[in-house]
Amino acid sequence: MNQTIETILNHRSIRKFKDIPLTDEQLDTMLSAAQQASTSSYMMAYSIIGVTDPEKKEKLAEITGQKYVKNNGHLFIYCADLHRPVMMASDEEYEQMLANLENSEHFLVSSVDAALAAQNAAIAAESMDLGICYIGSIRNNLSQVDELLSLPKHVIPLFGMVTGVPDHQPERKPRLPQKGIYFENEYKESTQAVESFDAHIKEYYQSRSSNNRIDSWTDQMLRRFTTPMRMDVTDLVQKKGFNKR
Amino acid sequence: MNQTIETILNHRSIRKFKDIPLTDEQLDTMLSAAQQASTSSYMMAYSIIGVTDPEKKEKLAEITGQKYVKNNGHLFIYCADLHRPVMMASDEEYEQMLANLENSEHFLVSSVDAALAAQNAAIAAESMDLGICYIGSIRNNLSQVDELLSLPKHVIPLFGMVTGVPDHQPERKPRLPQKGIYFENEYKESTQAVESFDAHIKEYYQSRSSNNRIDSWTDQMLRRFTTPMRMDVTDLVQKKGFNKR
Repeated sequence: MNQTIETILNHRSIRKFKDIPLTDEQLDTMLSAAQQASTSSYMMAYSIIGVTDPEKKEKLAEITGQKYVKNNGHLFIYCADLHRPVMMASDEEYEQMLANLENSEHFLVSSVDAALAAQNAAIAAESMDLGICYIGSIRNNLSQVDELLSLPKHVIPLFGMVTGVPDHQPERKPRLPQKGIYFENEYKESTQAVESFDAHIKEYYQSRSSNNRIDSWTDQMLRRFTTPMRMDVTDLVQKKGFNKR
Repeated sequence: MNQTIETILNHRSIRKFKDIPLTDEQLDTMLSAAQQASTSSYMMAYSIIGVTDPEKKEKLAEITGQKYVKNNGHLFIYCADLHRPVMMASDEEYEQMLANLENSEHFLVSSVDAALAAQNAAIAAESMDLGICYIGSIRNNLSQVDELLSLPKHVIPLFGMVTGVPDHQPERKPRLPQKGIYFENEYKESTQAVESFDAHIKEYYQSRSSNNRIDSWTDQMLRRFTTPMRMDVTDLVQKKGFNKR
């Protein structure tokens, strides 16, 4: 197994960091890695905001409810960004562009572009012995985050990522069995894969070193999905000109 | 620079492969890498279909208009998948779940989950000297792809990925300057970054070894965005129960 695959398979989300900022070189390496990711039709339809201002970090820690959004080596907010071509367009061209800017296709393209870039940065960080955690909870209040970062129309925050020198070593979290997520030639329902995973995950939750509890994956998902959440994401997304048709 | 960062920075999309299928070990490594990616709230909201049936590959090559979708070491279709929790739910629970299943938040979560997994698989492949190319053009006819793979409700195809032993070595494609995509604390419009990139990319297109032409990034983007495309993605996405509210 080569070093890269070892790094990838060794991933665990880090939620406690030493009080050491990223070096300029680490930051630059993460950004270069992000930028070299594949991008749909060369659009590079994302931007990254590095948040260093203590007041902004405090505010983001409040929105997300997570202390490590404040205390880390560096905090990134990944954004879907269709603004660059808009910036270069005449008024007439802009009018002609709206059908694409506002459709599901380009909401998808820009979200996927941002995610591919982020995952490259994550792997690069982990290969340098840094830890990372994605921060989906910026979507607890997307319009506040949007305002905080002064994002123009056709740019929306999608998720954050914290990085830094790890100050804990959590267990590697189990994943669904391969036969539950990979199928050949056509989709196959896999109740059995989920059930065997539930048995496995019950053991994991009972035996892990911190925050142990009695739970299964299915129970977790049913609790989560039966409680409507972040129903206002649509409002901000559409207000910023995405995903309207 | 470590081996992982070297692999990441060395990425170029490969569109011509030797006639050598992936080994079982390579396939397994790519899938394990995909599965170890971060996932929003442990949802693992994606599935991967490996397409090996020659007729299905032929059909997908037709839809995408790309020969290398047929001729490669392995073809993957990455899907957003919210079906697994649905499968485990009672009728009553399912009713309660609809608000989440159908909102933008979970369209985003499942697309990002799929993209993070895919990028891990891509980097793992490249670290084993395989090449990859993402295939966005399955969205030329998403409902045909959906039918071809027998995807149930709450599962949609997002993009493909071809993999295999490279049979060409294209140039590494330039990216926007870092100051055009990375900002500290707030968004900054960067016309200058785009303009300097346009000058650079004109040179690249004129000097590259194959398919050379006169073009700039801005011209490419304006041509692309002023022509409405894939306006029917929304229909399939919503028909499958995603992104409806």
